[in-house]
Amino acid sequence: MCQTALLYLGQVAVVNENLFSTCQLISRAQTPKPVDQLAQEIGLLQEETEAYGRTKAKVRLSLLDRLREQPDGKYVLVAGITPTPLGEGKSTVVIGLVQALSAHLKLNSFACLRQPSQGPTFGVKGGAAGGGYAQVIPMEEFNLHLTGDIHAITAANNLVAAAIDARMLHEATQTDKALYSRLVPSVNGDRRFSPIQIARLRRLGISEIDPSALTPQEVSSFVRLDLDPAKVTWQRVVDTNDRFLRKITVGQASTEKGHVRETQFDIAVASEIMAILALADGLGDMKTRLGRMVVGSSRSGQPVTAEDLGVSGALAVLMKDAIKPTLMQTLEGSPVFVHAGPFANIAHGNSSVLADKLALKLVGEDGFVVTEAGFGADIGMEKFFNIKCRASGLRPNIVVLVATVRALKMHGGGPNVSAGSPLPREYIDENLSLVAKGCSSNLRKQIQIAHLFGVPVVVALNVFKTDTQAEINLVCQMAKESGASDAVPCHHWALGGRGSVELAQAVKQASSQPSHFQFLYSQEKIRMIAQKVYGADDIELSPEAKAKIDYYNQQGYGKLPICMAKTHLSLSHLPEKKGTPTGFTLPIRDIRASIGAGFIYPLVGTMSTMPGLPTRPCFYDIDLDPVTEEITGLF
Amino acid sequence: MCQTALLYLGQVAVVNENLFSTCQLISRAQTPKPVDQLAQEIGLLQEETEAYGRTKAKVRLSLLDRLREQPDGKYVLVAGITPTPLGEGKSTVVIGLVQALSAHLKLNSFACLRQPSQGPTFGVKGGAAGGGYAQVIPMEEFNLHLTGDIHAITAANNLVAAAIDARMLHEATQTDKALYSRLVPSVNGDRRFSPIQIARLRRLGISEIDPSALTPQEVSSFVRLDLDPAKVTWQRVVDTNDRFLRKITVGQASTEKGHVRETQFDIAVASEIMAILALADGLGDMKTRLGRMVVGSSRSGQPVTAEDLGVSGALAVLMKDAIKPTLMQTLEGSPVFVHAGPFANIAHGNSSVLADKLALKLVGEDGFVVTEAGFGADIGMEKFFNIKCRASGLRPNIVVLVATVRALKMHGGGPNVSAGSPLPREYIDENLSLVAKGCSSNLRKQIQIAHLFGVPVVVALNVFKTDTQAEINLVCQMAKESGASDAVPCHHWALGGRGSVELAQAVKQASSQPSHFQFLYSQEKIRMIAQKVYGADDIELSPEAKAKIDYYNQQGYGKLPICMAKTHLSLSHLPEKKGTPTGFTLPIRDIRASIGAGFIYPLVGTMSTMPGLPTRPCFYDIDLDPVTEEITGLF
Repeated sequence: MCQTALLYLGQVAVVNENLFSTCQLISRAQTPKPVDQLAQEIGLLQEETEAYGRTKAKVRLSLLDRLREQPDGKYVLVAGITPTPLGEGKSTVVIGLVQALSAHLKLNSFACLRQPSQGPTFGVKGGAAGGGYAQVIPMEEFNLHLTGDIHAITAANNLVAAAIDARMLHEATQTDKALYSRLVPSVNGDRRFSPIQIARLRRLGISEIDPSALTPQEVSSFVRLDLDPAKVTWQRVVDTNDRFLRKITVGQASTEKGHVRETQFDIAVASEIMAILALADGLGDMKTRLGRMVVGSSRSGQPVTAEDLGVSGALAVLMKDAIKPTLMQTLEGSPVFVHAGPFANIAHGNSSVLADKLALKLVGEDGFVVTEAGFGADIGMEKFFNIKCRASGLRPNIVVLVATVRALKMHGGGPNVSAGSPLPREYIDENLSLVAKGCSSNLRKQIQIAHLFGVPVVVALNVFKTDTQAEINLVCQMAKESGASDAVPCHHWALGGRGSVELAQAVKQASSQPSHFQFLYSQEKIRMIAQKVYGADDIELSPEAKAKIDYYNQQGYGKLPICMAKTHLSLSHLPEKKGTPTGFTLPIRDIRASIGAGFIYPLVGTMSTMPGLPTRPCFYDIDLDPVTEEITGLF
Repeated sequence: MCQTALLYLGQVAVVNENLFSTCQLISRAQTPKPVDQLAQEIGLLQEETEAYGRTKAKVRLSLLDRLREQPDGKYVLVAGITPTPLGEGKSTVVIGLVQALSAHLKLNSFACLRQPSQGPTFGVKGGAAGGGYAQVIPMEEFNLHLTGDIHAITAANNLVAAAIDARMLHEATQTDKALYSRLVPSVNGDRRFSPIQIARLRRLGISEIDPSALTPQEVSSFVRLDLDPAKVTWQRVVDTNDRFLRKITVGQASTEKGHVRETQFDIAVASEIMAILALADGLGDMKTRLGRMVVGSSRSGQPVTAEDLGVSGALAVLMKDAIKPTLMQTLEGSPVFVHAGPFANIAHGNSSVLADKLALKLVGEDGFVVTEAGFGADIGMEKFFNIKCRASGLRPNIVVLVATVRALKMHGGGPNVSAGSPLPREYIDENLSLVAKGCSSNLRKQIQIAHLFGVPVVVALNVFKTDTQAEINLVCQMAKESGASDAVPCHHWALGGRGSVELAQAVKQASSQPSHFQFLYSQEKIRMIAQKVYGADDIELSPEAKAKIDYYNQQGYGKLPICMAKTHLSLSHLPEKKGTPTGFTLPIRDIRASIGAGFIYPLVGTMSTMPGLPTRPCFYDIDLDPVTEEITGLF
C-alpha cells in the first residue's frame, strides 16, 4: 500500500483513486526486464525456470540439488513494532533494503515476500506490492492471480471438504459390504487395494493386503471413517472477502437426505494447505504433510486424516506447481521471490521456507536474503523463529525492526488511529514527548523480544514526510539506547534503493556480528510465549482449551510448536492496549491443531477468518481499459 | 477419456487404474515440442505469445489486428448423435481429424477445444484430453489448472456474490445519507462520482455529475439497489463436485445481523462469466457483457446489474488474462487452442469465439479449423449455430457428426447403458438389426437437424475394437442414404492421425461444397427449437415460465437467442427415450436469463448445476511421485 497515502485517512476508497494511484503510475512507468534475463543475471539455468508470461517465472526445486554445496548467504528478517491498523510499511522496507544492497552496495541480494490474498485487494486494503519507489513490478501481476498458487490451494482445500461431506453421506447410506465393494472394486476378477488404502490399513494395524482376506471387523474399520459431523474441523475456503459465508448450513438439498450441517468458509490464505506450502521443504515433505492433515475426529475420538479420505495424492497433484516459488523483480530490477502467504492469525504469517532456501543459495556466501514476517515482532517474528526456523533449520543473522513515528506516537499515548477517519493533529505535528514514550515502551520491548532469541536488531525508521528531523533523531537515539545494534531513517518510498543505503550499510555491519540464535521454548510453550514475548503475568486456559491440551497430548501432538492466534494491534490480547501492556493474564479461549502444517494454535480471544467488504469496496475503482489494456485502481 | 476403457464399465475407479492409464502412458511417452517452437511454426510473432511453462502459452488478441486482412480458413464443427452416458469420443475425433489434416494431407489445421472442469477430473469422469493416439499433451496440464482461466472465473463470480450480500446488508443498516457519504466520499473537500457510478446515474436517467447537486430522491435511487433477497439469481461457484453446496443457508454469523438467505453453489463452469468468456469477441465486448449481467431484481422489479454493484471493472481486471486462448498441441504436434468450457446445460457448451477466430486467421484460406460442440447435435450443435455463430458472425462450412456402433445400438432398442455397470452382450457382439434401427432413428434425425441449418454433414464413425466390418459398412451406407455427404470409419484412437485420413479427405471434399447456412429461428424461438430440432409436437409453458417471458419481454430481452437446458441423453426431455422420440410435448418448467452472455435459457425438467462425488472418487488413484514428479491416475 502506498505510504504517503497513509497520511490521508479521510475516505479510504477515494484516497485510492486520488493518491494511491501514484504507486500505480510509478509502477507502470518502469518496464520490467524480461524474466528470462533476470533469471540469467541471478545464475539460473534455462531449464530451471518456467516462465508465466514475460514478467514472472516459477523456479524449479532442482536448483537446490545443483547448489547443494554452495554456502548460504546472510539471512535478514524484517519485522515491525506493533502496528497501527494502517500498517507501517514492512514490505517497502524489504524492497528498499534489497534495492540498496544490490544497486548501491553491489551485494547479491534477494527479497522474499508473501503472495497477497485477493480478498483485501478488492475489499478494504488494496494491493500489497509495496509502494512508491520500493515496489514489486508489475504490481498488477503481483496483486492478481500471480502464478495461480492461491487458486491451487483453494481447489485442493475444497476437494478435501467435498470429500468429507460426500464420505459421511455415503457411509450413512451404505452397508459395510456395499462400501467395501465400491471402495475396493473387482475389475475383471482382480481386486486390489490402492497405495493410499494400504497406508490406511497400516495405520489401522492391518497388515493383510489381500482384500478378500479381511475379517468383517477389519472391513468395517477400514470402510468407516465414522467422522463425527460435530467434530469436523476442516472448512471450505474462498479468496474473497465474503462475510456471509462466516457461518452457513450445507446439505439442504433433498439429494443430501437431511444430512445438514453448520460450517463456514474461511479466506483461502487461512487454509492449512497454505501453511503447509509455506513450511514444506520439498515435494515429498509437502505430500507427507498433506496426507497427515487432520480434518476432524471419529465418533470414537480418533483423528481422521486427508489420507484416510483417499485424497492426499490428488492434493499433491493439485499443488505440484504451487510448490515452486515465483520470481519477480523490484522497481530497480532486484530479484524477488513471491511464495505462499499464510494468514498471520491462525497460521504463522511468513513466506515460504523453500523461497528462502533457494534465495540463500542463489545469493551465495556474501549475499543477503531479506524476508518478511507479518504483523508486529511479537507475532510474525516470534512465529518466524519458533515455527518457520524450526521447520527449515535456517538461522537468521539479523532482525530489521521497522518503526514509524506515527505508530510510536500511538504507543506513547496518542489518540486512536483507524482506517476511514482523518489522522489527528498529533500525528502530523511534531510531538517529541509522544515519540519518546512510544520508544521506551513498544519499541524497547520489541527489541528485547528479538534479543530473547539471541539475534541482533537494526531499527529501520520508515520516514513519512510529516516526520521532523528532531523526531527522527530521537527515535534513532532511543532505539540504540534500548539495545539496537543500529537505528537509521529510511527514505525508500520517495527515493527507492538510494533512500535505504544507510540501512543497507547498518545491516551489513550488524550481520558481521555473531548471532546466538536459540529457540524460545521447549516445555510450557504457551505460558513461555505469553510471559517472555507478550509480557503477560500468566495465562488462563478455558475448560475447552484444557480438554484440547489433554487430547492433543494423548494423540502425540504435544511436541508441536505453538502458533498463537492473537491480535496484532497490541502486545496483549486487547487491541486498545498500546505501548508495553503489563499486569494482564492472557486468556486462551480454545486450542486447535494444524497437524499437516505441524503446529498447534491457541486462540486468544475471537479471530475472524473471513474479512468483510465495506460499503464502497476497492473494486469500485478497479478498471481495465479495453483498448490499452491498462489497469487502473490497483494500488 | 480413453476409448478402449469405455468398453469396461464394471467399476469406474479401478478401470481408471488398470486401463485408462494406457492413455497416460501414451501421453507421457511423447515429449511435447517447446511451445515457442510450436508458436513459431504456426506463424505467431514472439511478442504475440505468453508462455506458461514450457508446453502452454497464451496468445494475445493483437494477432487479430495483425491478420485482419487474412481470409479465414474452413470452419468445421464436430458434433455427435445423442450419446450414451459414457460419451462417444467427439474430442478424440477432433484431435484425430486435425492430426490427419496436418500431418497426412499437409493442410494447415487447428483444433479448438473446451477447457475441462476439475470437478469431474477428481470425481467420476476423469480427464478430458482425448485418448489413445488422439490426445492433447501434456494431458496433466490440460486437465489441471491449465493457465488459470477457470480459477479466474471462480474469483470473478464469487466477488460478485460477496458484493451482492454485503450490499444488501449495508443498505439494510444505513440511511441514504450514510450510504451516499460512503459511496461518494469527500477527499480533501473533493467529491466525485467514479466512472462506474456515472454509468449507473445514466441508467437512472440522472445527468447531473456534481454529487452535491442530486435531490434527496435522486440520492436515494442512486444509493439503493434495493435488491430483493428472494430474487437474487446470482450463485456462488466452486470447480469441485461438492453436492452439499447444492442448497445452503448463508449469513448465519451474528455479524450478519439475521440477514440469512437460502442460496446455492454451482460448478464453476456453469457461471455466466464462463459463458461470457466463450462468447466475447474482445476485451471491450467482454467488459460490456460483464457489466450488464443481471444478478437479481429490485423490490420494484427492476433488474440489478454487476455495473450497478460497482464491480464490473474489477471483473474485467480479474479476467484480463483469461480472455487469451491457450495454445497447446496434439500428440502428433498439431496446434490446439484450449479456451473456455461453458456448462452445456444452462449455458451453450461450446469453446470460445475468440479461439475459433484466431485459429481461422492462422490457418489461412486453405486451412481448416475443427471445433467441438458439447453433447448431441440437438443441443451442442443447435447452440453452436443459434448462439455462438450469432455472436461471432462466423459461418460453418461443414458438420462432422460423430456416431458409435454402441450408441446406435442403444437408439435401436438395445438395453440400458450406464456408468458403473458391465456393458450388455448386445454391445459387444455383432447386431445389425439394432444398428440399423439406430441409424434410421437418431442418426437420421441428427443429420436432418444439421440440414435444417443448411450445412453439409460428414458422419464419422468412431470405431471400437468390438465393432464388426458389417456393422461399420451398414452405418456408413445408411448415413449416406440419410443425406450425409459422406460417412467414414475412424481409427484415430489406435492409430492417431493415420486412422483419420479417410475422414480428413471426406471433410476436405465436403467442405468444397456450398454451405447455405441460416439461423433457425427469429420468432417463436422456443417452439421452433422444440419442434424442428427435437421433434416435439409442441411446448407447454408453466405459469412461472409464462410470467418470466412477459417480464423478459418487458425488460427488452425478447430478442436474445435461446439456450435450452435439456438432457443430452435423448432428443426429448426424457433421458430414457432413445432413437427419435415422437408424440411428446416439451415442458418448460422455468425460464432464466444470462443477460451478460446474451441468452435466455428455458429449463426443460430439472438440471443439476452441481455434480456429486461417488463412494470411490477418481482422486483415490491420482498421485504424484515426489522424486520423479510424475503424476499417476489422471487419464
